[in-house]
Amino acid sequence: MYTNTRPELESGTRALSARHYTAPEYFQTELEKIHYRMWLHAGRVEHLPKPGSYFLVELGTESIIVLRDEDLGLRAFYNVCRHRGTRLCQHGRGLLPGKIQCPYHAWTYSFDGTLISAPLMDKTCGFSLLDHPLQPVAVDTWDGHVFINFAADPAPLSEHLADLPQKFKPWGMEHLQQAAEIVYSINANWKLIIQNYSECLHCPLLHPQLQQLSHYMSGENDPPQPTYLGGRMDLREGIATLSQDGASPWAALPGLGRNEQRGIYYYAILPNLLLNLHPQYMLTFTLWPQACDRTEIVCRWSFHPDELAREGFDPSSAVDFWDLTNRQDWEVSELAQQGIRSRAYRPGLYSNREELLFALDQFVVGKCGSA
Amino acid sequence: MYTNTRPELESGTRALSARHYTAPEYFQTELEKIHYRMWLHAGRVEHLPKPGSYFLVELGTESIIVLRDEDLGLRAFYNVCRHRGTRLCQHGRGLLPGKIQCPYHAWTYSFDGTLISAPLMDKTCGFSLLDHPLQPVAVDTWDGHVFINFAADPAPLSEHLADLPQKFKPWGMEHLQQAAEIVYSINANWKLIIQNYSECLHCPLLHPQLQQLSHYMSGENDPPQPTYLGGRMDLREGIATLSQDGASPWAALPGLGRNEQRGIYYYAILPNLLLNLHPQYMLTFTLWPQACDRTEIVCRWSFHPDELAREGFDPSSAVDFWDLTNRQDWEVSELAQQGIRSRAYRPGLYSNREELLFALDQFVVGKCGSA
Amino acid sequence: MYTNTRPELESGTRALSARHYTAPEYFQTELEKIHYRMWLHAGRVEHLPKPGSYFLVELGTESIIVLRDEDLGLRAFYNVCRHRGTRLCQHGRGLLPGKIQCPYHAWTYSFDGTLISAPLMDKTCGFSLLDHPLQPVAVDTWDGHVFINFAADPAPLSEHLADLPQKFKPWGMEHLQQAAEIVYSINANWKLIIQNYSECLHCPLLHPQLQQLSHYMSGENDPPQPTYLGGRMDLREGIATLSQDGASPWAALPGLGRNEQRGIYYYAILPNLLLNLHPQYMLTFTLWPQACDRTEIVCRWSFHPDELAREGFDPSSAVDFWDLTNRQDWEVSELAQQGIRSRAYRPGLYSNREELLFALDQFVVGKCGSA
Repeated sequence: MYTNTRPELESGTRALSARHYTAPEYFQTELEKIHYRMWLHAGRVEHLPKPGSYFLVELGTESIIVLRDEDLGLRAFYNVCRHRGTRLCQHGRGLLPGKIQCPYHAWTYSFDGTLISAPLMDKTCGFSLLDHPLQPVAVDTWDGHVFINFAADPAPLSEHLADLPQKFKPWGMEHLQQAAEIVYSINANWKLIIQNYSECLHCPLLHPQLQQLSHYMSGENDPPQPTYLGGRMDLREGIATLSQDGASPWAALPGLGRNEQRGIYYYAILPNLLLNLHPQYMLTFTLWPQACDRTEIVCRWSFHPDELAREGFDPSSAVDFWDLTNRQDWEVSELAQQGIRSRAYRPGLYSNREELLFALDQFVVGKCGSA
Repeated sequence: MYTNTRPELESGTRALSARHYTAPEYFQTELEKIHYRMWLHAGRVEHLPKPGSYFLVELGTESIIVLRDEDLGLRAFYNVCRHRGTRLCQHGRGLLPGKIQCPYHAWTYSFDGTLISAPLMDKTCGFSLLDHPLQPVAVDTWDGHVFINFAADPAPLSEHLADLPQKFKPWGMEHLQQAAEIVYSINANWKLIIQNYSECLHCPLLHPQLQQLSHYMSGENDPPQPTYLGGRMDLREGIATLSQDGASPWAALPGLGRNEQRGIYYYAILPNLLLNLHPQYMLTFTLWPQACDRTEIVCRWSFHPDELAREGFDPSSAVDFWDLTNRQDWEVSELAQQGIRSRAYRPGLYSNREELLFALDQFVVGKCGSA
Repeated sequence: MYTNTRPELESGTRALSARHYTAPEYFQTELEKIHYRMWLHAGRVEHLPKPGSYFLVELGTESIIVLRDEDLGLRAFYNVCRHRGTRLCQHGRGLLPGKIQCPYHAWTYSFDGTLISAPLMDKTCGFSLLDHPLQPVAVDTWDGHVFINFAADPAPLSEHLADLPQKFKPWGMEHLQQAAEIVYSINANWKLIIQNYSECLHCPLLHPQLQQLSHYMSGENDPPQPTYLGGRMDLREGIATLSQDGASPWAALPGLGRNEQRGIYYYAILPNLLLNLHPQYMLTFTLWPQACDRTEIVCRWSFHPDELAREGFDPSSAVDFWDLTNRQDWEVSELAQQGIRSRAYRPGLYSNREELLFALDQFVVGKCGSA
């Protein structure tokens, strides 16, 4: 039925050595050279419905406040008071009352980050409110996705996304609304999660349920791009979507053509968004590396508002299918992390079904050097 | 009602950089240069009522036995057997039966630390009981407070205390007896705990209950001293003490004059005792740094014995008030520790209400250098 | 009754300094120079009854599969797939279905370690199944004990065992079968466990129950050997074995003479087997160092099959006696680990009842140098 028609891999296309996955110093380098420089998926605009709405994102030692300001624009700031460094917000999501006030000494910032009140600082020589704004983090959006960037002067998000906005326009992601969210904590390096996502060679053995709905040899990948890796797989005949039984109680998204309704799109938008588009729903995985061997993953299922509004709407056959599949993937990723720690580990050769993994390795080594 | 009449702070009075709070090596330097050289508050003499009474104190990797000897003197020793290093005592408090015996091979020490028995060591050439006493730690007392000092030849405790014995004589601390104790474990650097204690600029926002009883702008601080930092705050009109309702079911301590009955005294006796005197009771916080980001705090409430003997004596309105206030302080200190870890943290300017914090920073940097 | 007739210890026979027990780097050196080079006790052949039977052993970051192959020989391999490093087996024991298959991408190995299937690797230039066998670990047996060796070309196990096979032949260990197993996790260095096992000077105080059955001054040690340390102690008059009441519901092992039935044999076969032979049963402790301050110990009680087959066979008076004794030993070993961390710790002199400990120290320093 399917044959392996992808090009041959050159000799020497091996995985990375162990230290790329196990050395705390290399992890720190990755944060500095990759995560603190590139656009990072942070969440969805719908979680910031009105002025003062905010959510936090946590990456390594960093905590960032992403909020909607009075003019309905988005802002992001380090969650660090300019007085004595106290974290300003503690809860993952919430609504701020027109300002950001430090719980310690009541230093108060407007939504544009300006320090507007600092009690009893008038007797400190040289102190000026204007010198102490919150430290900003760049923020931008794409079709309802919120991205942040720690760099001082980042290139536009549109450059980072390249042709993806055009490619994924038919799914109308800006209209979709979240129906479910699960947060996973995995004892594996963030790259192992992306690698796991970037090949389906493991599907027959690890995901028998998935394999019944979508053949692991179906579909093709795009050539690797500087900022994303991805491709498509086909649904089997008679299968409407990835769900517990392959049926879809939900209508296809309105903008999709016949061909797009027969495939599942798997894209890794580097370095932290796994975008997984189904004919009827969007699944996103947002990766927050916490240590060389620990990654937090926020997994969200979003549907068309017409479906959410339908009486009896129930996302559970999509959520349950993927929660099962995710747990299979996280477990084997943890087994890989454990095995890579061994003194016997030697980087193995990739198959030509793993060409995206080799591209990810080259991306990382290109940014960070070899470990 | 109150105005900020303290002197202006010079330009550049900034907090310390992050590594002073986050680097394990700097923490180790602090132990070596400060805690292992200065007098440390260890507890109260009343916990050592008779020969053989002992308690343990734990600081970093160290465990110390503080005990009352046969002559009713106090002794302190490292909790380390001279044979193979085994910890001699395991329980935090207890009564020793006339000697200290290692649970492993029964090496036995008298209360003056002399090794008096070491079974079957007679066939080891050159072994002498006299060569293997417990390693002593200096110990002394002040008005019922027990202090220890790890230094080989420490200056007298009286030098360390300077004018404090005179200043606090009216409270008659030597007569007071403990009515309650709570041990807290806080994920924050020990200096953040002292800093939190050394200013009330945070009180209006963080401690609304406290603010109702004692105005945060009331009172004044002493000029910073080499071994202590502190000052006084006033009780509001009609408020008898710091308690859940501001009333006092307990009589004022007998030695106090009218003025002393209207104030609360907050002193940080460096590096590990926070002495907090109320008209009717004494509150102490003993700080045991365990890591750069973890501190154990033993909090004790002590009252006059006449009150303790009174039928229906109940310390709970003082204990509950402070337990609430403490938890507010510990939480915000942990938020400060988290924020200071951020790459965005920059030391901020102090207000002139935080002059004691700047003095603490100078004390630490004077002993340990900059991180 | 007993006198201390062992030879005098020379002056200067001191314990090792703290870093030998507390430095992670020294622990790593020990693994490299000792555990990864010497024969390690791994388990019992009876746990590998038929082709495909396997168990895992875990040491530091390593996981090893020990299995019985199709020809009933034993094999051991690193539990690391040659593709992307994934751990092949997850469960501690089990039965493999004729092959070892990686759960990730189905790379499949025969029981001799040959890679026999690697799906879709045909388009990778230069890939050959023959180049990717599982990495072997040497394995051998002695009287039912399975040993493994990480070294590339180890000396024979028989060299390592020296005269022990002859010495312990009467116990017929190859016939014994396991009746109970307890796994302990101890917060102490592996050497402290062996040291604890190698002297009974601590018995009167720590093990009053044991002391009632076997006098701590009874018996003698062999002179220290390059690969083992050990000796014998006597059972008291009227005591049949080490059990809760000193009685034995079990017959003596058939090969033992009168003298052997009156003693308990304590041997440390370096670096990880404590072999403890009783007249009626065998007790083994297999030590798996996990960190400088953590050791996992697998403790097994084995009896003669005639006893196991007897109606009402009950090993509990042996198991319970030793479980109590073990817990006493583990607790004091943890107290030693804690005390050795102290800045006050100075290596103490050994008694001449601790000559095997000094021999262990010399063995370690001979392999690894001083810390």
